[in-house]
Order: sequence, then structure tokens, then C-alpha cells
Amino acid sequence: MSKIPVIEIFGPTIQGEGAVIGVKTMFVRTYGCDYRCSWCDSAFTWDGSAKDIVRMLEPEEIMDELLALAGSNFDSVTISGGNPALLGDSMGQFVDLLHERGIQAAIETQGSRWQDWFYEIDALTISPKPPSSGMKTDWAMLDSILEKLKVPGKGTHSLKVVVFNEEDYVYAKTVHQRYPEVQLYLQPGNDDVTEPGDISARLLGRLEWLFNLVIADPAMNRVRVLPQLHALIWHNKRGK
Amino acid sequence: MSKIPVIEIFGPTIQGEGAVIGVKTMFVRTYGCDYRCSWCDSAFTWDGSAKDIVRMLEPEEIMDELLALAGSNFDSVTISGGNPALLGDSMGQFVDLLHERGIQAAIETQGSRWQDWFYEIDALTISPKPPSSGMKTDWAMLDSILEKLKVPGKGTHSLKVVVFNEEDYVYAKTVHQRYPEVQLYLQPGNDDVTEPGDISARLLGRLEWLFNLVIADPAMNRVRVLPQLHALIWHNKRGK
Repeated sequence: MSKIPVIEIFGPTIQGEGAVIGVKTMFVRTYGCDYRCSWCDSAFTWDGSAKDIVRMLEPEEIMDELLALAGSNFDSVTISGGNPALLGDSMGQFVDLLHERGIQAAIETQGSRWQDWFYEIDALTISPKPPSSGMKTDWAMLDSILEKLKVPGKGTHSLKVVVFNEEDYVYAKTVHQRYPEVQLYLQPGNDDVTEPGDISARLLGRLEWLFNLVIADPAMNRVRVLPQLHALIWHNKRGK
Repeated sequence: MSKIPVIEIFGPTIQGEGAVIGVKTMFVRTYGCDYRCSWCDSAFTWDGSAKDIVRMLEPEEIMDELLALAGSNFDSVTISGGNPALLGDSMGQFVDLLHERGIQAAIETQGSRWQDWFYEIDALTISPKPPSSGMKTDWAMLDSILEKLKVPGKGTHSLKVVVFNEEDYVYAKTVHQRYPEVQLYLQPGNDDVTEPGDISARLLGRLEWLFNLVIADPAMNRVRVLPQLHALIWHNKRGK
């Protein structure tokens, strides 16, 4: 059986962002990413700084570790990265294991790769990266992923764009106009993911800025603007 | 045609709480409530202090006012109170007017009265009040409302309980165990709705407290815990 490169397993905690904001969840963070976003808040998943703590685990081993950590104290697992969509059958098998136990699976990926197990995810967040990331969106790939997800009853999915500046906001609007039938979440970016101490005032200032852009813009009536609750409460600490 | 007692119309702004948190919306606040919650953040809708500004409006007049305020810059209207479920046909007619224009209707009520137009609401929040409110829940009524809402394809509804203390949390758990199939949102209460200035640190402290209760409690794996975003950003200001 193929294995999954895991860099972190933690929880239970509360999902702080996106379509399932506020849900109690465990986190499994996979190693490796095809992107190098300038402001990545989890750069240790790809910059080599933490590669010594990566473990190659079978799906059952991850399941065992989740149960050892939290027992019956969770009904949801969020798979994050890195880009978990770099993984094929091994991830599909892990999602099946979760479902066998009645546990929901949430996942976030940038929309640069397709995997058939996307259809099985209870909350699939496709999060293309705006210009401030330094990455370039592969629109043909994104189109093809969102087209495939149109199968009725398959794939509960949403879009999310992190917005750091006006150029990113224009990008988010392009995404919304390209896929108007998919719920789009906007999230203000965290400009400094290493700042120590309480960063909530800075983050709430950015949330107000993004609220005001959307409030003034008739092209964005159906988007939803949400903060990162975990960053408001636990700031830049890892593993929360 | 029957009229609606309106005390406030404002927006567009962002819905700060509950199932449609983060959505751009207009607000219509109705006058009159069958409850007198000790910590009500909109006591002017029932305590008589603002009764001189109440206007009796026909549904079309409210619609006209929304369009005059915001033009095409909204796709959602939140009807709040007071308790909007005190109103019968007039409110049903208003909801129909919204839908004729493709506008979604969200509403919050405490679950003390049934109205047939509940079936038409796009986001119906039933928010029974915990012990700290000083109000007593009519469980037979709440049972009957949630039973009626079980009709498939009718009524997109959720439950919300505001939690101020441990006793309220136990109440919220009772609600969750009584209606396990309905998504329950928990929201920390705002202990002082008249405090001037920036109250975000106090509110985030209460959110962390509630996060930690849910994180530790295997009976609450499926609830969602959310703040009031508008209070984090705009504090105790009215009309935001």
C-alpha cells in the first residue's frame, strides 16, 4: 500500500476559515507542494526546514494516530498541506477509512492538480492563489477541475481566494465571474506570519478593509468574507 | 394589505454571525418581541425607548426603501427584530417580493411562534434563548417548529444558541441532543452591549473560552462555534 508524507497531526481544534469555519476538527498536514507562495503560512511543508520530521505513513497508521490523540472527540478531519492533491490512491484510501468511521473529510488545495478522490470529500476547498503569491494560475487546469466537480451529488466544493491587496481583489473578482455558480470565500491575508504576540488588531483591520471593498462592489454580492479565527485567537502559533 | 412595523432599515453590510456569516446583506429590523432577554442587544425593538421611530410599512414600501438605499448592490436581505415571527401574511408577502427579484431572505427568530412563510426562507435561524436570558423555552413549541421544518426541500434552517456561561453551555448541549440532525451554531454572548470603544479583545477572549469547551467535549463534535464578526469590527455601534 502506498504511503503518505505527513509532517503534522494535531487537534482537536476548531477550523478557523472557509466553508466549514467553526467546526471541530483534527488536522493532518502533508509534506510537499508544487507552489512556493511568497506569504505561505506553512512554508515548512516545502522549504526543507522541517524535512527531518516528515514521516511516510500508511493510511491506517494516520487513522491510528488520530484515534490515539483524540479518541471519539472528533467527527471531522481536515487534510492540509502543502498540496494534498499531489497524492493519489493513498489519500483516497485514507478518505475511505475516515468515512468508514463516519468521520467527515475536509481538504484544501490550490487547484493545480486533479484527483478522483475529490469526489469523496465532504468539504473540498479549491483555493487558487492571487498575484501577491508570486504564483501563476493554470486557468485551463482550474476550468477542468471545476467542470469535473459539476457532477450532481458528487463533490461538495467551494472556492477560496486570500486577498492581500487591490490587485488580489481584482483577481478574486475574475475567479468569481469565471465560476459564478460556485460559492466563493474571500479571506484577508496575514501579512506577517512570523510576528510574535497578539496580531488580532492588525488582522481585524484587514478584515474591515476587505468587508468595505465587498460592501461597495455590486459584482461581489454573493461572495462571503471570512477571517481566520484561529489566527485571531491563537495568532501565529503552529499546531493550533 | 397588512403592514409591517419597521424600526430600522440599513446596509449593505456583512452578516456577522450564524449560518450565513460573511454574506453581504441588507437588514430590515421589525419592532416588537414576545421575549425580554436580559442581555438583548436590540432592546430598543421592544423596551419602548425607540417607539417613536417605528413606521408601519407595506411590503412594497420596504422593498422600495431597500432599492433606494442600495440599488443593485445586494442579493440578500436579513430580517431581524424583535421577533419577526410575530408577523404573519405581511411578512410572507415581503419574502415573496424579495424572491421575485432573486434576492435571498435570511431571518432569525427564537422559536416561540410558527409561521407558514418559514418554508420560504433561504436561511432560517431558530435561536432558542439560554437560561442567562431570563426567558423560559417552550419546548413543545420548539419541537413542533422543528418537526414541521423536516419537510424535505422546504426550509433551509439551523439552530443557534448564544452562550454566556457554563449553564448556557449545558442548555446548548440539551438543544443539540434534542435535535441532532439540525446544524447547531454556538456563539459567545456579548456581556456588555453598551461598552464604548474597542471590545474585540474581550469578545475574542470569550470565543476562545467557548472554543475550548467544545474542543474538550465529545458530545459537541458536530456543532459550529462562530463569533459576531460585526461586533469584532464595529463594536457596539448600531446600524452596522
